[in-house]
Amino acid sequence: MTPTRRSFLGTAALAGVLPALRPGLAKQPADPLPAWNDCPSKRAILDFVAKTTTEGGPDFVKPYDRVAVFDNDGTLWPEQPWPFEGVFAADRVRAMAAAEHPEWKTTQPFKDIIDGNVKGLIDQGLPAVIKLVAVTHTGMTTAQFDKTVRDWIATARHPRFDRPYTDLAYKPMLEVLAFLRANGYKTFIVSGGGAEFMRVWADKVYGIPPEQVVGTMFKMEYQLKGDRPDLCILPEVMLVDDKGGKPVGIEQVMGRRPVMCFGNSDGDLQMLQWTTIGRKPSFGLIVHHTDAVREWAYDKETHSSGKLVEALKQAPERGWTVVDMKADWKQVFTFKE
Amino acid sequence: MTPTRRSFLGTAALAGVLPALRPGLAKQPADPLPAWNDCPSKRAILDFVAKTTTEGGPDFVKPYDRVAVFDNDGTLWPEQPWPFEGVFAADRVRAMAAAEHPEWKTTQPFKDIIDGNVKGLIDQGLPAVIKLVAVTHTGMTTAQFDKTVRDWIATARHPRFDRPYTDLAYKPMLEVLAFLRANGYKTFIVSGGGAEFMRVWADKVYGIPPEQVVGTMFKMEYQLKGDRPDLCILPEVMLVDDKGGKPVGIEQVMGRRPVMCFGNSDGDLQMLQWTTIGRKPSFGLIVHHTDAVREWAYDKETHSSGKLVEALKQAPERGWTVVDMKADWKQVFTFKE
Repeated sequence: MTPTRRSFLGTAALAGVLPALRPGLAKQPADPLPAWNDCPSKRAILDFVAKTTTEGGPDFVKPYDRVAVFDNDGTLWPEQPWPFEGVFAADRVRAMAAAEHPEWKTTQPFKDIIDGNVKGLIDQGLPAVIKLVAVTHTGMTTAQFDKTVRDWIATARHPRFDRPYTDLAYKPMLEVLAFLRANGYKTFIVSGGGAEFMRVWADKVYGIPPEQVVGTMFKMEYQLKGDRPDLCILPEVMLVDDKGGKPVGIEQVMGRRPVMCFGNSDGDLQMLQWTTIGRKPSFGLIVHHTDAVREWAYDKETHSSGKLVEALKQAPERGWTVVDMKADWKQVFTFKE
Repeated sequence: MTPTRRSFLGTAALAGVLPALRPGLAKQPADPLPAWNDCPSKRAILDFVAKTTTEGGPDFVKPYDRVAVFDNDGTLWPEQPWPFEGVFAADRVRAMAAAEHPEWKTTQPFKDIIDGNVKGLIDQGLPAVIKLVAVTHTGMTTAQFDKTVRDWIATARHPRFDRPYTDLAYKPMLEVLAFLRANGYKTFIVSGGGAEFMRVWADKVYGIPPEQVVGTMFKMEYQLKGDRPDLCILPEVMLVDDKGGKPVGIEQVMGRRPVMCFGNSDGDLQMLQWTTIGRKPSFGLIVHHTDAVREWAYDKETHSSGKLVEALKQAPERGWTVVDMKADWKQVFTFKE
């Protein structure tokens, strides 16, 4: 937090006027979303939480039903220049090649990854990606995978910011998570990323425990060898938690429909629909990456997972709030950009 | 609660001595498990919770890690004369035959169900059961399935007790659930039953919300027809949450290992192992059905899901607590037997 922001918060708290303006938020700090500029998207979040927590009001939502889902990559932290889990996979391929698979240095699809030839990898298409995911995410126990992720996330650094990836959570979204939880909402991640990958660090980074993380899942097999029980991750996908798979993942893991949904790409279109269409009160929000200086600006011209065309087109008719990152976010990260 | 029990509780509360004996339980009622006789299994539960919630003690478990899993059929409510979900399926077949499938009255496997010929159905084997499950649990939207379960559970009555099935939760286990939650444990169901079936009533019966219910899952597909989003349940199993599938279901849905596990059959063997082997502190408990008068007495000679042989054999070496229902439970149900 910057000195400027701290003193703004202090002043507002001393003045003690803001809480009185918002029923049901008496226990909140004066401004629960200080990293947001005063703008329609900020007011939409505050208003929705206020009306759904105002007992006796027409839009009151019982605490039991206060469920909010968040996409991860591009919504809670960046997905540029590559989704971080892809960087993890590439780093793993390099480490495995060095330690036990020297032949990968001359074998595709591994050669392109080891050589840093991203274009070559993309040209190889989906089968290459599937093979990459299989060797880095499966064929080991959950304990082994947990350790590789834990070791990687503790040491890897983002190329642009030269900081651990876990430092890159968006400050405005951390504030939304905390604000919702303070108002009785349960917060869940619903991401195309691997569930087992995210569960290692989601609690530390977002305060979201493993059972509230929904992601792509691989089949597993239980084994008891001697006196050691293990779960082996098999090289077979159980659920691709993206696009139409997101409502499925929500239902399979959470067993109920959310009332709030936050995303940033067409991969989130279906869960935005599932959360909001025909349901009142409900809330959908899209983070639009418009800030080429502090973060990145992209929507149409990007890899498939970050593409934002159809969801943006549907936003006005569906009543979804669109965040203009450049205009709406006073600060993007917890550190000073 | 019977008058006798109420006055026992009142006396103990007035005496005010019990809480002082158990550190970390100061906020509990004098006896948090009044439906249990004073017996080793009751003391094992109380002691484990006391030591794992005593800050600074050698067995303290952080609130974050306090996760307890419970099998459902035979552990939280009865599974005799048939698992209740099987009765639901049979009732559905009869209703569907009457309304839209008259041909089922003369076609197997439906004919045996409609005629109440249980032996005939069993003789037809697993393919018959799979077909029965498919027509009653799949080929419809989650909203449609939810409604059929909701309608059934509101009206169906158990043949022996002539009460709604939702009245049949074991009082001693309801006390354990409440006691654990009061001590910061998150309680989950992990059952071979259908996740979507249980989620309809689990919160009402056990105070367990849908996202804390793990069960057998079917594949699903998202559809947006006109302005109506739906999830269609496909006739293909995604996970059989029984035996070795239980640790898998725990990992896929909850993403972490529990420290307490409660079961009653060999279907729970693997999750008892997964919870306890090589992990300290940890707690495993088996409900042994020994009460032919108030409930049922069975272990070896029963249908596969209720069979208790291997888990009972392993209990002493694994340190699992075995509940003798007849001796240990002062009262079985919330109503007077």
